[in-house]
Amino acid sequence: MPSYQRPNIQAMAGYTWGEQPDDRRTIKLNTNENPYPPSPAVDEAIAAITGTDLRRYPQPTADPLRVEIAKTHGIEQNQIVITNGGDEALRLAITTFVEPTATIAVTEPSYSLYPVLADIHGSQMLRIKLGESWEFPENFAQRANEAGAQLTCIVNPHAPSGTLVDTETLSTLADALDGVLLVDEAYVDFVDPELDYDCTSLINKHDNVLVLRSFSKGYGLAGMRLGYLFGTETLIDPIITKTRDSYNIDHISQAVGLAAFTDQAYAQNTWTAVREQRNLVRNALLQLGLESPPSQTNFILATVTIESPANAEALYEALKNAGILVRYFPTMKDKLRITIGTPQENEQLIATLTKLLT
Amino acid sequence: MPSYQRPNIQAMAGYTWGEQPDDRRTIKLNTNENPYPPSPAVDEAIAAITGTDLRRYPQPTADPLRVEIAKTHGIEQNQIVITNGGDEALRLAITTFVEPTATIAVTEPSYSLYPVLADIHGSQMLRIKLGESWEFPENFAQRANEAGAQLTCIVNPHAPSGTLVDTETLSTLADALDGVLLVDEAYVDFVDPELDYDCTSLINKHDNVLVLRSFSKGYGLAGMRLGYLFGTETLIDPIITKTRDSYNIDHISQAVGLAAFTDQAYAQNTWTAVREQRNLVRNALLQLGLESPPSQTNFILATVTIESPANAEALYEALKNAGILVRYFPTMKDKLRITIGTPQENEQLIATLTKLLT
Repeated sequence: MPSYQRPNIQAMAGYTWGEQPDDRRTIKLNTNENPYPPSPAVDEAIAAITGTDLRRYPQPTADPLRVEIAKTHGIEQNQIVITNGGDEALRLAITTFVEPTATIAVTEPSYSLYPVLADIHGSQMLRIKLGESWEFPENFAQRANEAGAQLTCIVNPHAPSGTLVDTETLSTLADALDGVLLVDEAYVDFVDPELDYDCTSLINKHDNVLVLRSFSKGYGLAGMRLGYLFGTETLIDPIITKTRDSYNIDHISQAVGLAAFTDQAYAQNTWTAVREQRNLVRNALLQLGLESPPSQTNFILATVTIESPANAEALYEALKNAGILVRYFPTMKDKLRITIGTPQENEQLIATLTKLLT
Repeated sequence: MPSYQRPNIQAMAGYTWGEQPDDRRTIKLNTNENPYPPSPAVDEAIAAITGTDLRRYPQPTADPLRVEIAKTHGIEQNQIVITNGGDEALRLAITTFVEPTATIAVTEPSYSLYPVLADIHGSQMLRIKLGESWEFPENFAQRANEAGAQLTCIVNPHAPSGTLVDTETLSTLADALDGVLLVDEAYVDFVDPELDYDCTSLINKHDNVLVLRSFSKGYGLAGMRLGYLFGTETLIDPIITKTRDSYNIDHISQAVGLAAFTDQAYAQNTWTAVREQRNLVRNALLQLGLESPPSQTNFILATVTIESPANAEALYEALKNAGILVRYFPTMKDKLRITIGTPQENEQLIATLTKLLT
């Protein structure tokens, strides 16, 4: 019986998503959700929607949301495209700028969806290893160009380590790359403001820079699918007018996203709370003998150096049995990625780890 | 300055969506929305959602909705994938089953998104002309196979004519085709039940049949983006596990879709009302000297045979000036596509047409 699938689809493995338990009592620290719900303005926006509002097609390009984002970032509306989650943004960048069979460059490790999207598209992946302490490789651009990379995806702050590359390094990289540089800022809202990290200015300096943002983490809206890309208009326009699905953002998503984004003060309070807890959790992990680089995200990558009583997978299982879900990647056998929760959740995590490790 | 776009993207034109006026007083008969709002169960579902529900990722595969659809159609859950509108379903079929550079076969004319999706993918389009009275070409399968078509998309009932091909013809076509047959049933809910048209059984008889359904028309939910594909598990599984965006359906869409689909009685009442009005509108158009094939959809394709006082484009403009929006396609210079509205809207359409044409 023929499978009808393209050979690259048949050969590939799909993305492995994190467990999403129905049970709401689980302390869920495995997929980097914001520990706080979205702004109360979201509840108001939902309450204002009736079935009648859903009868007609939505505004095709989510313009009210683009206007608000443009105002906040100090960029132009036509430099922004709203996407059905950050994942759609990544797919659209590949669809628009990468020939099937051409190369996409990423760091190794990084977001595990990148190679899946490359497999779907039929593209090659160039994986350039980070240093021992997650340092960004100096010869990255040269190697990407030699491989003919038409797109480079850099998740910054980095997943899964939580470390940050500074704006200047990315600007230099953009200058040096022959192809498009996509800076995947899914976790940017959790970066310490004192670091003055800001890629917004890059899009007017470079004609090849796309920046990705997500509502899933910073705005407590993982349950919706909302993200956006910004960049120079020549990169954004073909995505809006040609490659995205028409009406890619439904009416309710537009309303919810606008409500959440407009309430910057609320969102920023959740980011501050997460930063404070992140430092507390990291210190506690270090005291328990786990290693962990300083994180600029809402998660911590912990290296389980202790042989007994728990290696990383066993520790993942033990935490799960105690009702705490963290992320274990089979590709990193000595590590766990732990999302920062509410103060109560973090306390329980630390108490449980203390019991398991001492 | 390099554009960075792939050559096929640079060369293509995007999809032209129908006008979506902000003005709610316009009688909007241009993009085939259901004239009735969705079931009141949708309002209840929305009212039950709070921001807190949106903090976590949604159920990754929209399983509660798949279970309900499976029950209603008498098929298996694993024969169904929920998509972000019918448009995502079409894109996913192409991504999964068509090699870039390979061929997609369609009838000419048909849904104007098909060639856009082929352009994005870098595929060839084989357009096989329908007969003078929209008859399905007998040698369709032979020609598609000779061109090496890996996917055939047949919109049935047909857009933009509203005509229907029977189940047996599609079964014969599926047998004869070397590639996958996608039956795009976006408008199927409006088919007269007496015709006994039903493609559900085809998916267990043929390993190469996919059927597409949409919530936009039949369930009054164009403002959401919800559709689904069903077919044999070997066709559906790679779409679910490999090619769709992970978490492609957000939490609210899942809840809204489930509420609307579960209230079949309400939806069916809107279909009956549309069918009745469709016949009234068509008869009125015929009396005004317009030509129109009998329609099995929620729209009518009218041929403007009268030279004076109005050709199709002028008639479109005159209706628009009178506050009634219908669809004019520059590729069909003597035709207008008119969505069936509420009885009041249809009355006003006919009164206005009468004024303009007599």
